[in-house]
Amino acid sequence: MNICTYSYEEYLHLVKSFHGHLAPGLIIGGFIVDLAMKNLPEGEFFDAICETPVCLPDAVQILTHCTIGNGWLSIVPFGRFAVTLYEKYTGKGVRVYLDTEKLNAWPEVRDWYLKKKKKSEQDPDLLLAQIKEAGHGLLGIQRVQVEPEKVRRKKMGPSGICPVCGEAYPSKDGDSCRNCQGETPYTDVVRLSEAKQKCAGC
Amino acid sequence: MNICTYSYEEYLHLVKSFHGHLAPGLIIGGFIVDLAMKNLPEGEFFDAICETPVCLPDAVQILTHCTIGNGWLSIVPFGRFAVTLYEKYTGKGVRVYLDTEKLNAWPEVRDWYLKKKKKSEQDPDLLLAQIKEAGHGLLGIQRVQVEPEKVRRKKMGPSGICPVCGEAYPSKDGDSCRNCQGETPYTDVVRLSEAKQKCAGC
Repeated sequence: MNICTYSYEEYLHLVKSFHGHLAPGLIIGGFIVDLAMKNLPEGEFFDAICETPVCLPDAVQILTHCTIGNGWLSIVPFGRFAVTLYEKYTGKGVRVYLDTEKLNAWPEVRDWYLKKKKKSEQDPDLLLAQIKEAGHGLLGIQRVQVEPEKVRRKKMGPSGICPVCGEAYPSKDGDSCRNCQGETPYTDVVRLSEAKQKCAGC
Repeated sequence: MNICTYSYEEYLHLVKSFHGHLAPGLIIGGFIVDLAMKNLPEGEFFDAICETPVCLPDAVQILTHCTIGNGWLSIVPFGRFAVTLYEKYTGKGVRVYLDTEKLNAWPEVRDWYLKKKKKSEQDPDLLLAQIKEAGHGLLGIQRVQVEPEKVRRKKMGPSGICPVCGEAYPSKDGDSCRNCQGETPYTDVVRLSEAKQKCAGC
């Protein structure tokens, strides 16, 4: 049993290393990405869509070249457990999703996924065992045509210097950056003098 | 010269492997995360904020345990080139940013960062050489107090089954999932019968 080019155990190791712990969703996510990769339409360059920010983006980032930072992975806020890989120019894609009709064969997975049991009532070993045994058996697959402009990151455009904070920002955001327009999550911002910085070797 | 626990060359290798190419922003991002890690406030568990989705989130994901999928990395859409690491319970944090006042000493970096030169006019070798030589010298550092509830992912809450697509979705989104309410990026969705799936080994 493989997850893309990795053995199942190698994939679990990568999940622990990248994601920090063996999240059930990320193991199902491995099977999702694997099945999508095996059913790619023709083409050379593929972008990815995740339909939830929870767990699944890490499966895509571990197993494909699509990351948040390079812009080839987009996240849409549908809260559905699905990944689409699509040819970046034609938009032809394959969408793999968790098929709720197939969940009844795997009750521990069903109760976890549909939140029918509190965390304290779940049996984590049984959950992981059922996920492994089910493999692709929990999944459905669709051919889709993607409208890339609906999911792709917009270009930043020209930069300006914010007159409030002095940092560069996208001019299209207005006369100052969005942080200084009031969206800031920071209070008590204090600049650290260079004498107070710890910066070995710089 | 190190980037967190890696040598500079090891970090470049990780960037190529994860991000796909040696993006200048991701190399500066390595220095940003490194300087933030060296100036962490007291505490055990740190979450991260990136102020742009471009490049920088990958530096955080390569160098820390904060990822998009585990929710410890949040992205705010300010378009500023900055990373904050903050103690997840107290919100005490350190923010490292690209200091525009320090750019004049590194003209190739300045012209690239402020978009004063077209891509065809840039000298990529000189740009990377100046980024490496500048190291932490391009950066500023602030102590900040973060309001975590302003950046953290909201909980999904209870799940329902969408009456249109039949998939699970967050009930708080309404009577059907956001895809089926009309936000879909897909046209021509065709379910693939199991006979037509390629799925070696499942």
